[in-house]
Amino acid sequence: MGMNENVSKPLDRLAAELAGDMGDVNALIRERMASRHAPRIPEVTAHLVEAGGKRLRPLLVLAAARLCGYAGDKHLLLAAAVEFIHTATLLHDDVVDESQQRRGRPTANLLWDNKSSVLVGDYLFARSFQLMADTGSMQVMRILANASATIAEGEVLQLTAAQDITTTEDIYIQIVRGKTAALFSAATESGSVVAGADDTVRQALFEYGDALGIAFQIVDDLLDYGGSTATIGKNIGDDFRERKLTLPVIKAIAAADADERAFWERCIGQGKQDAGDLDRALTILKARGALDAARTDAIAWAERAKSALAAAPAHELRKELSDLADYVVSRIS
Amino acid sequence: MGMNENVSKPLDRLAAELAGDMGDVNALIRERMASRHAPRIPEVTAHLVEAGGKRLRPLLVLAAARLCGYAGDKHLLLAAAVEFIHTATLLHDDVVDESQQRRGRPTANLLWDNKSSVLVGDYLFARSFQLMADTGSMQVMRILANASATIAEGEVLQLTAAQDITTTEDIYIQIVRGKTAALFSAATESGSVVAGADDTVRQALFEYGDALGIAFQIVDDLLDYGGSTATIGKNIGDDFRERKLTLPVIKAIAAADADERAFWERCIGQGKQDAGDLDRALTILKARGALDAARTDAIAWAERAKSALAAAPAHELRKELSDLADYVVSRIS
Repeated sequence: MGMNENVSKPLDRLAAELAGDMGDVNALIRERMASRHAPRIPEVTAHLVEAGGKRLRPLLVLAAARLCGYAGDKHLLLAAAVEFIHTATLLHDDVVDESQQRRGRPTANLLWDNKSSVLVGDYLFARSFQLMADTGSMQVMRILANASATIAEGEVLQLTAAQDITTTEDIYIQIVRGKTAALFSAATESGSVVAGADDTVRQALFEYGDALGIAFQIVDDLLDYGGSTATIGKNIGDDFRERKLTLPVIKAIAAADADERAFWERCIGQGKQDAGDLDRALTILKARGALDAARTDAIAWAERAKSALAAAPAHELRKELSDLADYVVSRIS
Repeated sequence: MGMNENVSKPLDRLAAELAGDMGDVNALIRERMASRHAPRIPEVTAHLVEAGGKRLRPLLVLAAARLCGYAGDKHLLLAAAVEFIHTATLLHDDVVDESQQRRGRPTANLLWDNKSSVLVGDYLFARSFQLMADTGSMQVMRILANASATIAEGEVLQLTAAQDITTTEDIYIQIVRGKTAALFSAATESGSVVAGADDTVRQALFEYGDALGIAFQIVDDLLDYGGSTATIGKNIGDDFRERKLTLPVIKAIAAADADERAFWERCIGQGKQDAGDLDRALTILKARGALDAARTDAIAWAERAKSALAAAPAHELRKELSDLADYVVSRIS
């Protein structure tokens, strides 16, 4: 399938380029999310899977495999497996965060209950390992089992680091690797493995996914202090209200004077927030250059993602993946 | 290691027989439940793993592998993986059931929070797949991925069947296969696979684990209407109060007259329970022969488990596994 010149955004271009594969992946997802015995499972899953997510992670699997010259169909199984892991983590995250909205719709834990979200998440996680087993590749198994452990570890770390204003940038990056980058890098790395790529290419695609994921999450955290509800489907200041130590806040705390430190300790450390505190937080973040510094970091990670691609095979998809890295940070520039 | 003649119970005998292997499994469990970044993980896991559970499932893995003449050490990885899956499901179950006690101690969701239970469960589940990958056997992967899907499916089915007094014995058995028997049968089957057993033996060990697991769960459900708090670590009538459709109740409803049907509909269907209702339920269960009939079913499943062993290799552990099936139902006779 040729590129559609009318589609301008890199993610849409990638989706158009891989539309044939993606159609097969969607069919596979629908087939494998079924349950003969428990109709609640596809109900809950469909609510989330069909809510119009961008399918970024399965697209990364497909793109990596095709970029490495793969002509088989096992990458379809892998793409579905990665989307199931992603969906399972969303279901569990919404329970953990007590979220009310996801992708502009009520969350599953609100529509059904926490129990269903926990158990359907477990089901999808198990289903993803069945899909991986169908690829017949033990290396793929290992990559995704490792990623799953890193994801859960990152979430637990986030839980214990939340509200702790001594959280460092290093811990933030560890958390981000867990909550976002681990599945991005597992998607691109395992896509290359299923294509039989050599170790240099495999490593390059791992690094691309890792850096892209970190850039993506920093941007997401920045938008929470500067995007609009329409753009990101959540309200500005959610992270502030939930007392999350994201990169802009960590940078502002590192540069804080005594007054500001007391402000952050009260709002984030102790959770005592009043009307006007979010505005003051935004003022401090700007005054301390914390938003700009975080933006600079995001762009550096995107550049790192692009550089990693130098070791990947020359293929038209390489340009698409490079543009995707630029696009991820374009939302904040 | 020889058998200790002073130890009378089959489960204790099995544990004594396999004490060397089990020591290695316990060391592996402690090593793999660690987390470099998130100390909350081993805290929560240790609370449960070290609470003195009987390690029945890893023992089944070890026994099946040894029974099939295995002399290697991959069954240790598998036993640890199975215990991690079991622990993960306990953590998630306690969130789903809003339990306060497990093995006579406060549950993790009570000591920490639901969030930690969900995420640490996810971590252990991922860790179990890493352990499986280390066995290098794709067949083992497939067996345990299938079991994990069946477990989650059974739990969701239980959620939707709860409080529905039209639940049949067939649905009950499906739920029990999910919540209990799937991991028993996966333990014994995968133990034989890691030992290189042929298909006949593999199938025999699958059937043994499946039937043993069903007998085990029917007994557990019976004890809820007849055991003592001391014996089972939970209170009589918990299932009644939680409006669970277990085998005795399903049998009593099938035999109910109009008055009794109205009673079950009120207590289980609508959850309107008064003082004295549990006593009346016990009276009806006895009068309708529901407890005796469920007991007969449990014994039949135990016999089925023992029969399956006929196709397993002649080995002293075969007698131990056969005695274990008798022991499981001895708690109700």
